[in-house]
Amino acid sequence: MNCAARSAQAFVPSHITGFFAAHRRDDPLLAGSVGCGLCLFLGATTTVECAPEIEETEIFLNGALSEAPVSRFVVQRLARRPVRVKTELQMPFGAGFGASGAGALGCAYALNSMLDLGLTANQTAAVAHEAEVTNQTGLGDVIAQNTGGLVVRLHPGAPGTGVIDRIPVPPLPISYVVRGPISTKQVLSDERVMAAVNAAGKSALKELLKRPTFANFLKLSRRFTLNSCLASDWAIQAIEAVEAAGGLASMIMLGDAVFAFGETAAEALGSFGQVHTTIVSQRGANLD
Amino acid sequence: MNCAARSAQAFVPSHITGFFAAHRRDDPLLAGSVGCGLCLFLGATTTVECAPEIEETEIFLNGALSEAPVSRFVVQRLARRPVRVKTELQMPFGAGFGASGAGALGCAYALNSMLDLGLTANQTAAVAHEAEVTNQTGLGDVIAQNTGGLVVRLHPGAPGTGVIDRIPVPPLPISYVVRGPISTKQVLSDERVMAAVNAAGKSALKELLKRPTFANFLKLSRRFTLNSCLASDWAIQAIEAVEAAGGLASMIMLGDAVFAFGETAAEALGSFGQVHTTIVSQRGANLD
Repeated sequence: MNCAARSAQAFVPSHITGFFAAHRRDDPLLAGSVGCGLCLFLGATTTVECAPEIEETEIFLNGALSEAPVSRFVVQRLARRPVRVKTELQMPFGAGFGASGAGALGCAYALNSMLDLGLTANQTAAVAHEAEVTNQTGLGDVIAQNTGGLVVRLHPGAPGTGVIDRIPVPPLPISYVVRGPISTKQVLSDERVMAAVNAAGKSALKELLKRPTFANFLKLSRRFTLNSCLASDWAIQAIEAVEAAGGLASMIMLGDAVFAFGETAAEALGSFGQVHTTIVSQRGANLD
Repeated sequence: MNCAARSAQAFVPSHITGFFAAHRRDDPLLAGSVGCGLCLFLGATTTVECAPEIEETEIFLNGALSEAPVSRFVVQRLARRPVRVKTELQMPFGAGFGASGAGALGCAYALNSMLDLGLTANQTAAVAHEAEVTNQTGLGDVIAQNTGGLVVRLHPGAPGTGVIDRIPVPPLPISYVVRGPISTKQVLSDERVMAAVNAAGKSALKELLKRPTFANFLKLSRRFTLNSCLASDWAIQAIEAVEAAGGLASMIMLGDAVFAFGETAAEALGSFGQVHTTIVSQRGANLD
């Protein structure tokens, strides 16, 4: 089935998790995680097109034709016709920035608009959450990216099912450095690792709710980084370098990557790789 | 009690309600409204300051010292010291743009930051909601302004208690014209009027949820304007002028004011007063 040429575009911020505890459920709408993470302005822009000449669905990631299973799940669920999806990522892929969730969520918003599906924001985002959980690429990015800001995930689940709140935060500068990816799927499927992660994540959330501030988020993320045993030596050294210079830093969950805040943060990260600086995104996912 | 000189600043978008049904409850956190409305980029910026020389709380609205009972409620609840509050409104006051809610919500966010109160976004916004409900100046603006975008209020109540969803919408241009204020307090206390309003509002919400799109929001707001009998002849004529020019328009609840969407909307409104054009704010309340 073809359709007249149309298109739509959506923006989704990146999302870096500071700490989390996973909640497995058979129903992907109930599965997810609790924890806290920060949406960043460097995000993903996704355009969808339908036109008579598109005979099979094509998904492009930064210009390259890609399997993109998470976004493909969304297309299969929402589009009854072949579409062309183009996602441009401003953030690294596979390093804990919620890139797969951002692509899938942007795809869902753009398809909802282009095909006039009449879904609410939560209904749209729930499809992207399901795509992430099913592909084991993420458990909590989508509900946070759908909202924007510094998001606390209080109860797990898809947007509209899970419960969140925000911690007020100005559009502060955040610097980060990335050494490489970590496989979310691999971490999530290691029972021993996940026992430590979940204990540390639940404890951090409980502490954060006693005093939900940005500074406390950073402090508790740092503690989670140690207690969860997920950080590489490189990441620990980068965090310590930022702290020695008077800033605050923590590991990006899940990537071999470190984010930092403070006037001296970018400089202190300099010897650990290429430093990028962006700001907190107070805007969540929406149409462009 | 004095404090060292400090300050903080917050932005809150304006919010125009298209349709609503009021829910009265003795507990202001449970009271509120259901319905749907649009957050606009022309909003309110509130700065709070504390300094040793401030001996009594002062609230300035657009530069003029003001009683500002809604913001004052927030100060009394959150600050244990005299503060100076300065709210600059980019939107009209008393004409359905949620100006009192924006001032109170911005005040709450800024105080939470300046005094390091450690409240979440919902906890902060709940104080502003309570201030609005107690002063009978609004029933649903704060929860929408706290979120941004086109907000559906599904269940009444304060942020964190009420249930909302969004309808995805790009940052579209919205034009409006204002003839004058309507007293929210007077409308809300007229039982006969409120019976018609609540019946029309519940019906519009039910219809919207069958197909939650921006176009349907405009159409159902238009129908609510007629069925609620709240519109002046001037407002009806302005709406009809926009429609005759191929646009969509409705009354702003609660003001003698009309908002409109469409390429010809601003021009069609031209003979009804000074036309302002802004865009949908996808960003909700937050610190600057």
